Amino acid sequence: MTTELALIAALRALAGTPEARGLMDDAAVLEIGGEKLVLTLDTMVESVHFLPGDPPKDIAWKLVAVNASDVSAKGAEPLGCLYSHALGEESWDEAFVAGLAAASAHFRLPLLGGDTVRMPAGAPRSFSLTALGRTKGPVPSRGGAQAGDRIWVSGTIGDSGLGLSVLTGQEAEGQAAEWLATRYRRPSPDTPLGPALAPLVSAMMDISDGLLVDGQRMADASGVAMIIGADSVPLSEAFRAIAGDELPARLAAMTAGDDYCLLFTAPPQHTAQIRETAAALGCEVHAVGGVSAGTGLSVSHKGVPVPLPDQLGYQH
Amino acid sequence: MTTELALIAALRALAGTPEARGLMDDAAVLEIGGEKLVLTLDTMVESVHFLPGDPPKDIAWKLVAVNASDVSAKGAEPLGCLYSHALGEESWDEAFVAGLAAASAHFRLPLLGGDTVRMPAGAPRSFSLTALGRTKGPVPSRGGAQAGDRIWVSGTIGDSGLGLSVLTGQEAEGQAAEWLATRYRRPSPDTPLGPALAPLVSAMMDISDGLLVDGQRMADASGVAMIIGADSVPLSEAFRAIAGDELPARLAAMTAGDDYCLLFTAPPQHTAQIRETAAALGCEVHAVGGVSAGTGLSVSHKGVPVPLPDQLGYQH
Repeated sequence: MTTELALIAALRALAGTPEARGLMDDAAVLEIGGEKLVLTLDTMVESVHFLPGDPPKDIAWKLVAVNASDVSAKGAEPLGCLYSHALGEESWDEAFVAGLAAASAHFRLPLLGGDTVRMPAGAPRSFSLTALGRTKGPVPSRGGAQAGDRIWVSGTIGDSGLGLSVLTGQEAEGQAAEWLATRYRRPSPDTPLGPALAPLVSAMMDISDGLLVDGQRMADASGVAMIIGADSVPLSEAFRAIAGDELPARLAAMTAGDDYCLLFTAPPQHTAQIRETAAALGCEVHAVGGVSAGTGLSVSHKGVPVPLPDQLGYQH
Repeated sequence: MTTELALIAALRALAGTPEARGLMDDAAVLEIGGEKLVLTLDTMVESVHFLPGDPPKDIAWKLVAVNASDVSAKGAEPLGCLYSHALGEESWDEAFVAGLAAASAHFRLPLLGGDTVRMPAGAPRSFSLTALGRTKGPVPSRGGAQAGDRIWVSGTIGDSGLGLSVLTGQEAEGQAAEWLATRYRRPSPDTPLGPALAPLVSAMMDISDGLLVDGQRMADASGVAMIIGADSVPLSEAFRAIAGDELPARLAAMTAGDDYCLLFTAPPQHTAQIRETAAALGCEVHAVGGVSAGTGLSVSHKGVPVPLPDQLGYQH
């Protein structure tokens, strides 16, 4: 991990243009002809980001979904994608491309180009996808949260993480377990929500590594203190059916990866408009805390401060 | 290879938007705010596109260079890049990033974003880079060659291929051998040439897999016949010092990969302006053949038809 942090520091030194946003944001932002182009790249590696036995359709879906989520979190409309395919077994590749087709249509990210590469025999395969979005509106960064703002999340938190536990051994059966597993395998970020909310927010990012670790990143980037109420964090019915909704379950949800929900902050006077905007798109949004002067992230539960868990989320 | 062709066919079916150019071109082209954005993605895999013992600086250089070459061949000015880094040993990674920094500065492709990923132990590493370019001018395709046009190449042909032979065992020493090896390890496409020539050409692409196979692709995409004179193909002094310039050496040059020179066609009346444009940039260009009605690629030598070699270039 130290290696990765050192490397990222070296890369940040390289990425000196304002468009790169210091590699601190979810995406790069380029201004072209009065519009803003948002660009993001994510790579998924076999045995790291997915298991060799995972259904190829779902791997492809997720590759598109995670990038679509980043584009949405920057307030941009999807424009298209390029991707790099590591060749493997024919039927596996066919199923992968079918999943890519489904996700590309669902998230309105048409395939624009890419590369196909052979891999050495037995090598784990990796797939990189670059997604593009465009907007004429604001492109919220992670760094805009202001003291006095409310903290919001979209969707429900922790479903995908619990879905992974279900898939990898936690005892659970029935419809709720299946629903959670699908949330892990085929994340479905509400991508129209990002562009709709962008004019109302002070900071926005997607939650990919866990609400707490991503919240901490937002607090750090914004130079503010953020406090999140564990009791305010929205949990799905399926999550509560299997894990309950006491504090330990809530902390597990808040530190689980792969939510692909939005985390955003906004001044209190935008509250009604935020709720209306989300409702008009059929999306859930919930206020989960507040921003104040200071630094760092803290958690409360029913008004009482709670120690931060050791691990705030998935660490790359 | 059949698998890859089937996969590419499936992907082409997916890439239905005009921006994708049917995945038949070197890059995707998007119109944004009155400008054209050119996007290309290339992936390099250890033990496939580079050897585990290759200097990491050179691998990074090449990753940027091959993408810069595609952007230039579409007539675009470099804008920036995103890349995905497969983490490995710290000193290796540091050297790689140093090479990336050098190439990013040289080819004016500042780093805008990307991803770093861990790899399973012992896995071959792969690096994907997405490069962006912009232009307000025309974006030449592979498919615009017209009967009556001249065929041109920039630079000299076959240097990199002979450099690879030198590195992998062909007996050769001295300055010429070293120069050729450098051409393989650190390709230096004349990227300012593409945008300068774009308004003058009918079709343009970069030569990456070999002059003959890429020429055949241009002939097929344009629906014309192309004849290339082996005796007109420019060879470097170093190439001739080691391989001579008889027909077999010329055919070897014409079927070798990694040239990253431009292949373009243009009406004869643009000849003087093409030469002047190249000279003003300190670049070499050479007319190497002609386009006529018909289909396919053929080769002549000193006016006499020559049978096509079995392998026209590097086949992915």
